[in-house]
Amino acid sequence: MTWQATILTLFPGMFPGPLGQSLAGRALEDGLWSLDLRDLRDYGLGRHRTVDDTPFGGGAGMVMRPDVVSAAIRDVAAAGRPVIYPTPRGRLLRQDDVRRLTGGPGVVVLCGRYEGVDERVLEACAVEQVSIGDYVLSGGEMAALVLLDSCVRLIPGVMGSDASGTEESFSDGLLEYPHYTKPASWEGRDVPDILLSGHHAAIASWRQTESETATRVRRPDLWAAYRRRTGQDTSDPVSHAADPDRLH
Amino acid sequence: MTWQATILTLFPGMFPGPLGQSLAGRALEDGLWSLDLRDLRDYGLGRHRTVDDTPFGGGAGMVMRPDVVSAAIRDVAAAGRPVIYPTPRGRLLRQDDVRRLTGGPGVVVLCGRYEGVDERVLEACAVEQVSIGDYVLSGGEMAALVLLDSCVRLIPGVMGSDASGTEESFSDGLLEYPHYTKPASWEGRDVPDILLSGHHAAIASWRQTESETATRVRRPDLWAAYRRRTGQDTSDPVSHAADPDRLH
Repeated sequence: MTWQATILTLFPGMFPGPLGQSLAGRALEDGLWSLDLRDLRDYGLGRHRTVDDTPFGGGAGMVMRPDVVSAAIRDVAAAGRPVIYPTPRGRLLRQDDVRRLTGGPGVVVLCGRYEGVDERVLEACAVEQVSIGDYVLSGGEMAALVLLDSCVRLIPGVMGSDASGTEESFSDGLLEYPHYTKPASWEGRDVPDILLSGHHAAIASWRQTESETATRVRRPDLWAAYRRRTGQDTSDPVSHAADPDRLH
Repeated sequence: MTWQATILTLFPGMFPGPLGQSLAGRALEDGLWSLDLRDLRDYGLGRHRTVDDTPFGGGAGMVMRPDVVSAAIRDVAAAGRPVIYPTPRGRLLRQDDVRRLTGGPGVVVLCGRYEGVDERVLEACAVEQVSIGDYVLSGGEMAALVLLDSCVRLIPGVMGSDASGTEESFSDGLLEYPHYTKPASWEGRDVPDILLSGHHAAIASWRQTESETATRVRRPDLWAAYRRRTGQDTSDPVSHAADPDRLH
Protein backbone atom coordinates (compact mmCIF):
# COMPACT_ATOMS: atom_id res chain seq x y z
CA MET A 1 0.00 0.00 0.00
CA THR A 2 1.47 3.31 -1.09
CA TRP A 3 1.08 6.12 1.43
CA GLN A 4 -0.96 8.78 -0.35
CA ALA A 5 -0.58 12.53 0.05
CA THR A 6 -2.99 14.92 -1.65
CA ILE A 7 -2.32 18.66 -1.45
CA LEU A 8 -5.02 21.27 -2.09
CA THR A 9 -3.18 24.51 -2.81
CA LEU A 10 -3.12 27.73 -4.78
CA PHE A 11 0.61 27.12 -5.34
CA PRO A 12 1.01 23.61 -6.75
CA GLY A 13 4.41 24.69 -8.08
CA MET A 14 5.74 24.62 -4.51
CA PHE A 15 5.50 20.80 -4.52
CA PRO A 16 7.28 18.48 -4.29
CA GLY A 17 9.93 21.23 -3.87
CA PRO A 18 12.39 20.09 -1.22
CA LEU A 19 10.48 16.80 -0.90
CA GLY A 20 11.71 15.92 -4.39
CA GLN A 21 15.25 15.48 -3.08
CA SER A 22 17.13 13.34 -0.57
CA LEU A 23 15.23 10.71 1.43
CA ALA A 24 11.71 11.85 0.53
CA GLY A 25 12.61 12.35 -3.12
CA ARG A 26 14.06 8.88 -3.52
CA ALA A 27 11.09 7.37 -1.72
CA LEU A 28 8.75 9.24 -4.08
CA GLU A 29 10.62 7.87 -7.10
CA ASP A 30 10.55 4.40 -5.57
CA GLY A 31 6.78 4.60 -5.13
CA LEU A 32 6.88 4.35 -1.32
CA TRP A 33 4.54 7.34 -1.23
CA SER A 34 2.54 9.27 -3.82
CA LEU A 35 1.89 12.98 -4.22
CA ASP A 36 -1.32 14.23 -5.81
CA LEU A 37 -1.60 18.00 -6.36
CA ARG A 38 -4.89 19.85 -6.78
CA ASP A 39 -4.93 23.51 -7.72
CA LEU A 40 -7.64 25.25 -5.68
CA ARG A 41 -7.90 27.79 -8.48
CA ASP A 42 -9.49 25.06 -10.62
CA TYR A 43 -12.45 25.11 -8.23
CA GLY A 44 -12.73 28.91 -8.30
CA LEU A 45 -15.86 30.78 -9.37
CA GLY A 46 -16.55 32.65 -12.58
CA ARG A 47 -14.27 33.88 -15.28
CA HIS A 48 -11.62 34.91 -12.76
CA ARG A 49 -11.74 31.62 -10.87
CA THR A 50 -12.29 33.54 -7.65
CA VAL A 51 -11.48 31.57 -4.50
CA ASP A 52 -11.81 34.21 -1.78
CA ASP A 53 -13.87 37.16 -0.62
CA THR A 54 -13.91 39.79 2.13
CA PRO A 55 -14.58 38.69 5.73
CA PHE A 56 -18.03 39.20 7.24
CA GLY A 57 -17.82 41.54 10.19
CA GLY A 58 -14.94 43.47 8.62
CA GLY A 59 -11.21 43.26 9.08
CA ALA A 60 -8.08 43.01 6.98
CA GLY A 61 -7.46 40.33 4.40
CA MET A 62 -9.48 37.88 2.40
CA VAL A 63 -11.08 34.58 3.39
CA MET A 64 -11.28 31.46 1.23
CA ARG A 65 -14.87 30.65 0.30
CA PRO A 66 -16.58 27.55 1.73
CA ASP A 67 -18.17 26.55 -1.59
CA VAL A 68 -14.82 26.60 -3.39
CA VAL A 69 -12.88 24.79 -0.69
CA SER A 70 -15.56 22.14 -0.12
CA ALA A 71 -15.71 21.40 -3.86
CA ALA A 72 -11.99 20.70 -3.84
CA ILE A 73 -12.13 18.52 -0.73
CA ARG A 74 -15.07 16.50 -2.04
CA ASP A 75 -13.37 16.00 -5.38
CA VAL A 76 -10.61 14.07 -3.61
CA ALA A 77 -11.31 10.46 -2.78
CA ALA A 78 -10.10 10.79 0.78
CA ALA A 79 -11.03 7.16 1.51
CA GLY A 80 -10.17 7.12 5.18
CA ARG A 81 -7.46 9.72 4.94
CA PRO A 82 -7.81 12.66 7.35
CA VAL A 83 -8.15 16.13 5.82
CA ILE A 84 -5.68 18.37 7.63
CA TYR A 85 -5.66 22.15 7.57
CA PRO A 86 -2.43 23.70 8.86
CA THR A 87 -3.24 26.83 10.86
CA PRO A 88 -1.87 28.55 13.96
CA ARG A 89 -5.42 28.06 15.36
CA GLY A 90 -4.98 24.30 15.45
CA ARG A 91 -3.74 21.85 18.00
CA LEU A 92 0.04 21.46 18.06
CA LEU A 93 1.51 18.75 15.87
CA ARG A 94 3.64 16.26 17.81
CA GLN A 95 5.70 13.26 16.88
CA ASP A 96 2.96 10.94 18.20
CA ASP A 97 0.59 12.44 15.64
CA VAL A 98 3.16 11.96 12.91
CA ARG A 99 3.50 8.28 13.81
CA ARG A 100 -0.24 7.80 13.75
CA LEU A 101 -0.64 9.57 10.41
CA THR A 102 2.16 7.52 8.88
CA GLY A 103 0.47 4.35 10.08
CA GLY A 104 -2.66 5.24 8.11
CA PRO A 105 -3.37 5.34 4.36
CA GLY A 106 -2.15 8.93 3.94
CA VAL A 107 -3.33 12.52 4.31
CA VAL A 108 -5.15 15.25 2.44
CA VAL A 109 -3.65 18.66 3.27
CA LEU A 110 -5.63 21.83 2.68
CA CYS A 111 -3.26 24.80 2.34
CA GLY A 112 -4.78 28.13 3.36
CA ARG A 113 -3.72 31.51 2.08
CA TYR A 114 -4.75 35.04 3.01
CA GLU A 115 -6.59 35.19 6.34
CA GLY A 116 -7.58 31.54 6.11
CA VAL A 117 -10.59 29.42 5.29
CA ASP A 118 -14.26 29.98 6.08
CA GLU A 119 -14.99 28.24 9.37
CA ARG A 120 -18.08 26.44 8.09
CA VAL A 121 -16.18 24.31 5.59
CA LEU A 122 -13.90 23.09 8.36
CA GLU A 123 -16.96 21.84 10.25
CA ALA A 124 -18.85 20.51 7.24
CA CYS A 125 -15.90 18.53 5.90
CA ALA A 126 -14.55 17.38 9.29
CA VAL A 127 -11.25 19.09 8.65
CA GLU A 128 -8.60 18.75 11.36
CA GLN A 129 -6.86 21.98 12.29
CA VAL A 130 -3.22 21.42 13.12
CA SER A 131 -0.48 23.89 14.01
CA ILE A 132 3.19 23.13 13.40
CA GLY A 133 4.21 25.84 15.88
CA ASP A 134 3.49 29.25 17.40
CA TYR A 135 4.57 31.41 14.49
CA VAL A 136 2.83 32.74 11.40
CA LEU A 137 3.65 31.57 7.88
CA SER A 138 2.71 33.12 4.55
CA GLY A 139 0.49 30.12 3.81
CA GLY A 140 -0.15 26.51 4.62
CA GLU A 141 2.23 25.19 1.97
CA MET A 142 5.36 25.38 4.11
CA ALA A 143 3.54 23.61 6.94
CA ALA A 144 2.37 20.93 4.52
CA LEU A 145 5.98 20.31 3.49
CA VAL A 146 6.98 19.93 7.13
CA LEU A 147 4.09 17.57 7.85
CA LEU A 148 4.84 15.41 4.82
CA ASP A 149 8.58 15.32 5.50
CA SER A 150 8.00 14.18 9.08
CA CYS A 151 5.57 11.48 7.92
CA VAL A 152 7.45 10.23 4.89
CA ARG A 153 10.68 9.53 6.77
CA LEU A 154 8.75 7.08 8.97
CA ILE A 155 7.30 5.07 6.08
CA PRO A 156 8.87 1.60 6.21
CA GLY A 157 11.78 1.41 3.78
CA VAL A 158 12.39 5.15 3.54
CA MET A 159 15.09 5.43 6.18
CA GLY A 160 17.86 3.03 6.92
CA SER A 161 18.38 2.22 10.56
CA ASP A 162 20.52 5.37 10.67
CA ALA A 163 17.88 7.75 11.85
CA SER A 164 16.34 5.48 14.45
CA GLY A 165 18.29 7.17 17.22
CA THR A 166 16.73 10.54 16.58
CA GLU A 167 13.33 8.94 16.46
CA GLU A 168 13.89 7.45 19.89
CA SER A 169 14.56 10.86 21.39
CA PHE A 170 10.91 11.83 21.36
CA SER A 171 9.50 8.48 22.41
CA ASP A 172 10.65 8.90 26.00
CA GLY A 173 9.58 12.56 26.14
CA LEU A 174 13.12 13.90 26.59
CA LEU A 175 15.37 15.87 24.28
CA GLU A 176 18.20 13.91 22.80
CA TYR A 177 21.68 13.82 24.34
CA PRO A 178 24.56 15.68 22.63
CA HIS A 179 26.54 14.03 19.85
CA TYR A 180 30.28 13.93 19.31
CA THR A 181 32.42 12.61 16.49
CA LYS A 182 36.03 12.85 15.27
CA PRO A 183 38.39 14.48 15.94
CA ALA A 184 38.46 13.49 19.63
CA SER A 185 40.29 16.71 20.40
CA TRP A 186 39.37 19.81 18.42
CA GLU A 187 40.56 23.35 19.10
CA GLY A 188 41.23 22.50 22.71
CA ARG A 189 37.78 20.97 23.15
CA ASP A 190 37.83 17.28 23.99
CA VAL A 191 35.07 14.75 23.65
CA PRO A 192 33.81 13.77 27.14
CA ASP A 193 36.09 10.98 28.44
CA ILE A 194 33.20 8.71 29.23
CA LEU A 195 32.34 8.37 25.54
CA LEU A 196 35.82 6.95 24.86
CA SER A 197 35.67 4.54 27.82
CA GLY A 198 33.90 1.66 26.11
CA HIS A 199 31.71 1.18 29.20
CA HIS A 200 28.32 0.88 27.59
CA ALA A 201 26.27 1.11 30.78
CA ALA A 202 28.19 4.19 31.94
CA ILE A 203 27.74 5.81 28.53
CA ALA A 204 24.00 5.11 28.57
CA SER A 205 23.74 6.60 32.05
CA TRP A 206 25.71 9.71 31.03
CA ARG A 207 23.50 10.19 27.98
CA GLN A 208 20.36 9.84 30.07
CA THR A 209 21.61 12.52 32.46
CA GLU A 210 22.50 14.81 29.55
CA SER A 211 19.04 14.30 28.04
CA GLU A 212 17.38 15.13 31.33
CA THR A 213 19.51 18.24 31.86
CA ALA A 214 18.89 19.56 28.33
CA THR A 215 15.15 18.97 28.72
CA ARG A 216 15.00 20.65 32.14
CA VAL A 217 16.93 23.72 30.97
CA ARG A 218 15.55 24.17 27.47
CA ARG A 219 12.06 22.74 27.69
CA PRO A 220 10.64 23.03 31.19
CA ASP A 221 7.24 22.12 29.71
CA LEU A 222 8.46 18.72 28.48
CA TRP A 223 10.44 18.25 31.69
CA ALA A 224 7.39 18.75 33.89
CA ALA A 225 5.37 16.30 31.76
CA TYR A 226 8.21 13.77 31.92
CA ARG A 227 8.48 13.99 35.68
CA ARG A 228 4.76 13.50 36.12
CA ARG A 229 4.75 10.53 33.75
CA THR A 230 7.70 8.87 35.44
CA GLY A 231 6.25 9.47 38.89
CA GLN A 232 9.00 11.85 40.04
CA ASP A 233 6.47 14.62 40.54
CA THR A 234 3.48 13.61 42.64
CA SER A 235 1.87 17.05 42.79
CA ASP A 236 -1.46 17.56 41.09
CA PRO A 237 -1.31 17.28 37.34
CA VAL A 238 -1.44 20.69 35.71
CA SER A 239 -4.14 20.63 33.10
CA HIS A 240 -2.37 22.73 30.50
CA ALA A 241 0.60 20.42 30.29
CA ALA A 242 -1.54 17.38 29.65
CA ASP A 243 -2.18 16.44 26.07
CA PRO A 244 -5.61 14.85 25.86
CA ASP A 245 -6.34 16.08 22.35
CA ARG A 246 -4.36 14.20 19.84
CA LEU A 247 -4.88 13.63 16.17
CA HIS A 248 -6.67 10.30 15.82
CA MET B 1 19.41 47.43 4.19
CA THR B 2 18.60 44.11 2.61
CA TRP B 3 17.76 41.36 5.09
CA GLN B 4 20.38 38.65 4.51
CA ALA B 5 19.84 34.92 4.80
CA THR B 6 22.74 32.51 4.46
CA ILE B 7 22.05 28.77 4.42
CA LEU B 8 24.70 26.16 5.17
CA THR B 9 23.39 22.90 3.77
CA LEU B 10 24.24 19.63 2.09
CA PHE B 11 21.20 20.20 -0.15
CA PRO B 12 21.52 23.68 -1.68
CA GLY B 13 19.13 22.55 -4.42
CA MET B 14 16.29 22.68 -1.88
CA PHE B 15 16.53 26.50 -1.87
CA PRO B 16 14.85 28.82 -2.55
CA GLY B 17 12.32 26.08 -3.35
CA PRO B 18 8.90 27.26 -2.17
CA LEU B 19 10.46 30.57 -1.08
CA GLY B 20 11.01 31.34 -4.77
CA GLN B 21 7.26 31.80 -5.25
CA SER B 22 4.44 33.97 -3.97
CA LEU B 23 5.21 36.68 -1.38
CA ALA B 24 8.73 35.55 -0.51
CA GLY B 25 9.63 34.95 -4.14
CA ARG B 26 8.56 38.40 -5.27
CA ALA B 27 10.37 39.96 -2.31
CA LEU B 28 13.51 38.05 -3.26
CA GLU B 29 13.28 39.33 -6.84
CA ASP B 30 12.66 42.84 -5.55
CA GLY B 31 15.78 42.68 -3.40
CA LEU B 32 13.91 43.00 -0.09
CA TRP B 33 15.92 40.04 1.15
CA SER B 34 18.88 38.05 -0.16
CA LEU B 35 19.64 34.35 -0.13
CA ASP B 36 23.21 33.08 -0.01
CA LEU B 37 23.69 29.30 -0.28
CA ARG B 38 26.79 27.47 0.92
CA ASP B 39 27.23 23.78 0.22
CA LEU B 40 28.65 22.11 3.33
CA ARG B 41 30.19 19.50 1.03
CA ASP B 42 32.61 22.18 -0.20
CA TYR B 43 34.12 22.22 3.29
CA GLY B 44 34.38 18.43 3.47
CA LEU B 45 37.64 16.55 4.01
CA GLY B 46 39.74 14.61 1.54
CA ARG B 47 38.97 13.29 -1.86
CA HIS B 48 35.43 12.28 -0.86
CA ARG B 49 34.68 15.63 0.80
CA THR B 50 33.66 13.80 3.95
CA VAL B 51 31.48 15.85 6.31
CA ASP B 52 30.50 13.28 8.94
CA ASP B 53 31.76 10.36 11.00
CA THR B 54 30.49 7.81 13.51
CA PRO B 55 29.42 8.99 16.98
CA PHE B 56 31.78 8.55 19.94
CA GLY B 57 30.20 6.29 22.51
CA GLY B 58 28.36 4.30 19.86
CA GLY B 59 24.86 4.50 18.49
CA ALA B 60 23.07 4.67 15.17
CA GLY B 61 23.73 7.27 12.53
CA MET B 62 26.47 9.69 11.62
CA VAL B 63 27.43 13.03 13.18
CA MET B 64 28.63 16.10 11.29
CA ARG B 65 32.27 16.91 12.11
CA PRO B 66 33.12 20.05 14.09
CA ASP B 67 36.08 20.99 11.87
CA VAL B 68 33.96 20.87 8.72
CA VAL B 69 30.99 22.73 10.17
CA SER B 70 33.12 25.41 11.85
CA ALA B 71 34.99 26.06 8.59
CA ALA B 72 31.69 26.74 6.86
CA ILE B 73 30.38 29.00 9.63
CA ARG B 74 33.60 31.00 9.78
CA ASP B 75 33.66 31.40 6.02
CA VAL B 76 30.40 33.34 6.26
CA ALA B 77 30.67 36.98 7.22
CA ALA B 78 27.92 36.74 9.81
CA ALA B 79 28.44 40.39 10.82
CA GLY B 80 25.96 40.51 13.66
CA ARG B 81 23.66 37.89 12.25
CA PRO B 82 22.82 35.01 14.62
CA VAL B 83 23.82 31.52 13.52
CA ILE B 84 20.77 29.32 14.01
CA TYR B 85 20.76 25.52 14.05
CA PRO B 86 17.30 23.99 13.72
CA THR B 87 17.06 20.92 15.96
CA PRO B 88 14.40 19.25 18.11
CA ARG B 89 16.89 19.81 20.97
CA GLY B 90 16.50 23.58 20.77
CA ARG B 91 14.21 26.09 22.38
CA LEU B 92 10.85 26.44 20.66
CA LEU B 93 10.58 29.09 17.97
CA ARG B 94 7.81 31.60 18.63
CA GLN B 95 6.43 34.58 16.78
CA ASP B 96 8.27 36.93 19.18
CA ASP B 97 11.55 35.39 18.04
CA VAL B 98 10.54 35.79 14.42
CA ARG B 99 9.85 39.48 14.96
CA ARG B 100 13.21 39.99 16.65
CA LEU B 101 15.08 38.14 13.90
CA THR B 102 13.33 40.13 11.20
CA GLY B 103 14.29 43.35 12.98
CA GLY B 104 17.99 42.42 12.72
CA PRO B 105 20.35 42.24 9.73
CA GLY B 106 19.44 38.63 8.87
CA VAL B 107 20.29 35.06 9.83
CA VAL B 108 22.75 32.28 9.09
CA VAL B 109 21.01 28.90 9.22
CA LEU B 110 23.02 25.71 9.69
CA CYS B 111 21.06 22.73 8.37
CA GLY B 112 21.90 19.45 10.07
CA ARG B 113 21.53 16.01 8.53
CA TYR B 114 22.01 12.50 9.91
CA GLU B 115 22.08 12.46 13.73
CA GLY B 116 23.08 16.12 13.89
CA VAL B 117 26.15 18.23 14.51
CA ASP B 118 29.04 17.71 16.94
CA GLU B 119 28.15 19.56 20.14
CA ARG B 120 31.50 21.34 20.39
CA VAL B 121 30.99 23.38 17.24
CA LEU B 122 27.69 24.66 18.61
CA GLU B 123 29.52 25.97 21.68
CA ALA B 124 32.62 27.25 19.86
CA CYS B 125 30.64 29.17 17.25
CA ALA B 126 27.87 30.40 19.59
CA VAL B 127 25.23 28.65 17.52
CA GLU B 128 21.63 29.04 18.68
CA GLN B 129 19.63 25.82 18.78
CA VAL B 130 16.03 26.38 17.79
CA SER B 131 13.16 23.91 17.39
CA ILE B 132 10.20 24.64 15.12
CA GLY B 133 8.14 21.98 16.91
CA ASP B 134 8.05 18.62 18.66
CA TYR B 135 8.46 16.38 15.64
CA VAL B 136 11.41 14.97 13.74
CA LEU B 137 12.33 16.05 10.22
CA SER B 138 14.70 14.43 7.75
CA GLY B 139 17.01 17.42 8.06
CA GLY B 140 17.24 21.07 8.98
CA GLU B 141 16.38 22.30 5.50
CA MET B 142 12.61 22.14 5.93
CA ALA B 143 12.90 23.99 9.24
CA ALA B 144 15.09 26.62 7.58
CA LEU B 145 12.37 27.18 4.97
CA VAL B 146 9.80 27.66 7.72
CA LEU B 147 12.04 30.05 9.65
CA LEU B 148 12.80 32.13 6.56
CA ASP B 149 9.17 32.22 5.42
CA SER B 150 8.02 33.44 8.82
CA CYS B 151 10.73 36.13 8.88
CA VAL B 152 10.49 37.30 5.27
CA ARG B 153 6.76 38.02 5.42
CA LEU B 154 7.46 40.55 8.21
CA ILE B 155 10.09 42.48 6.27
CA PRO B 156 8.67 45.94 5.58
CA GLY B 157 7.22 46.06 2.07
CA VAL B 158 6.78 42.30 1.67
CA MET B 159 3.14 42.05 2.74
CA GLY B 160 0.38 44.44 2.03
CA SER B 161 -1.81 45.31 4.96
CA ASP B 162 -3.71 42.12 4.12
CA ALA B 163 -1.94 39.80 6.48
CA SER B 164 -1.79 42.16 9.43
CA GLY B 165 -4.83 40.54 11.02
CA THR B 166 -3.17 37.17 11.30
CA GLU B 167 -0.09 38.78 12.74
CA GLU B 168 -2.18 40.34 15.47
CA SER B 169 -3.49 36.97 16.56
CA PHE B 170 -0.25 36.04 18.28
CA SER B 171 0.52 39.43 19.79
CA ASP B 172 -2.16 39.08 22.45
CA GLY B 173 -1.31 35.45 23.15
CA LEU B 174 -4.66 34.11 21.94
CA LEU B 175 -5.58 32.08 18.89
CA GLU B 176 -7.38 33.98 16.21
CA TYR B 177 -11.18 34.10 15.96
CA PRO B 178 -12.95 32.17 13.14
CA HIS B 179 -13.39 33.75 9.73
CA TYR B 180 -16.47 33.81 7.51
CA THR B 181 -17.04 35.04 3.98
CA LYS B 182 -19.65 34.75 1.25
CA PRO B 183 -22.07 33.13 0.78
CA ALA B 184 -23.83 34.20 3.99
CA SER B 185 -25.82 30.99 3.89
CA TRP B 186 -24.11 27.86 2.65
CA GLU B 187 -25.48 24.32 2.78
CA GLY B 188 -27.77 25.26 5.65
CA ARG B 189 -24.93 26.80 7.61
CA ASP B 190 -25.32 30.51 8.24
CA VAL B 191 -22.72 33.07 9.16
CA PRO B 192 -23.22 34.15 12.81
CA ASP B 193 -25.82 36.96 12.84
CA ILE B 194 -23.62 39.28 14.83
CA LEU B 195 -21.14 39.51 11.93
CA LEU B 196 -23.90 40.89 9.69
CA SER B 197 -25.11 43.39 12.31
CA GLY B 198 -22.73 46.24 11.56
CA HIS B 199 -22.22 46.79 15.30
CA HIS B 200 -18.47 47.07 15.43
CA ALA B 201 -18.15 46.94 19.21
CA ALA B 202 -20.39 43.88 19.43
CA ILE B 203 -18.44 42.17 16.66
CA ALA B 204 -15.15 42.90 18.41
CA SER B 205 -16.55 41.49 21.63
CA TRP B 206 -17.83 38.34 19.89
CA ARG B 207 -14.47 37.81 18.24
CA GLN B 208 -12.65 38.22 21.55
CA THR B 209 -14.89 35.58 23.14
CA GLU B 210 -14.33 33.22 20.20
CA SER B 211 -10.56 33.73 20.48
CA GLU B 212 -10.64 32.96 24.17
CA THR B 213 -12.78 29.87 23.71
CA ALA B 214 -10.61 28.46 20.94
CA THR B 215 -7.47 29.08 22.99
CA ARG B 216 -8.94 27.50 26.12
CA VAL B 217 -10.12 24.38 24.27
CA ARG B 218 -7.27 23.86 21.82
CA ARG B 219 -4.26 25.30 23.60
CA PRO B 220 -4.63 25.10 27.37
CA ASP B 221 -0.93 26.01 27.63
CA LEU B 222 -1.43 29.37 25.90
CA TRP B 223 -4.66 29.91 27.80
CA ALA B 224 -2.99 29.46 31.18
CA ALA B 225 -0.21 31.87 30.18
CA TYR B 226 -2.77 34.39 28.94
CA ARG B 227 -4.75 34.25 32.17
CA ARG B 228 -1.66 34.76 34.26
CA ARG B 229 -0.54 37.67 32.11
CA THR B 230 -3.93 39.35 32.20
CA GLY B 231 -4.24 38.83 35.94
CA GLN B 232 -7.23 36.46 35.72
CA ASP B 233 -5.25 33.73 37.41
CA THR B 234 -3.59 34.82 40.61
CA SER B 235 -2.23 31.42 41.60
CA ASP B 236 1.50 30.86 41.63
CA PRO B 237 3.05 31.04 38.22
CA VAL B 238 3.88 27.58 36.92
CA SER B 239 7.49 27.53 35.87
CA HIS B 240 7.10 25.35 32.83
CA ALA B 241 4.59 27.64 31.19
CA ALA B 242 6.77 30.72 31.58
CA ASP B 243 9.01 31.54 28.68
CA PRO B 244 12.17 33.13 30.09
CA ASP B 245 14.43 31.79 27.36
CA ARG B 246 13.90 33.59 24.17
CA LEU B 247 16.12 34.04 21.18
CA HIS B 248 18.16 37.23 21.72
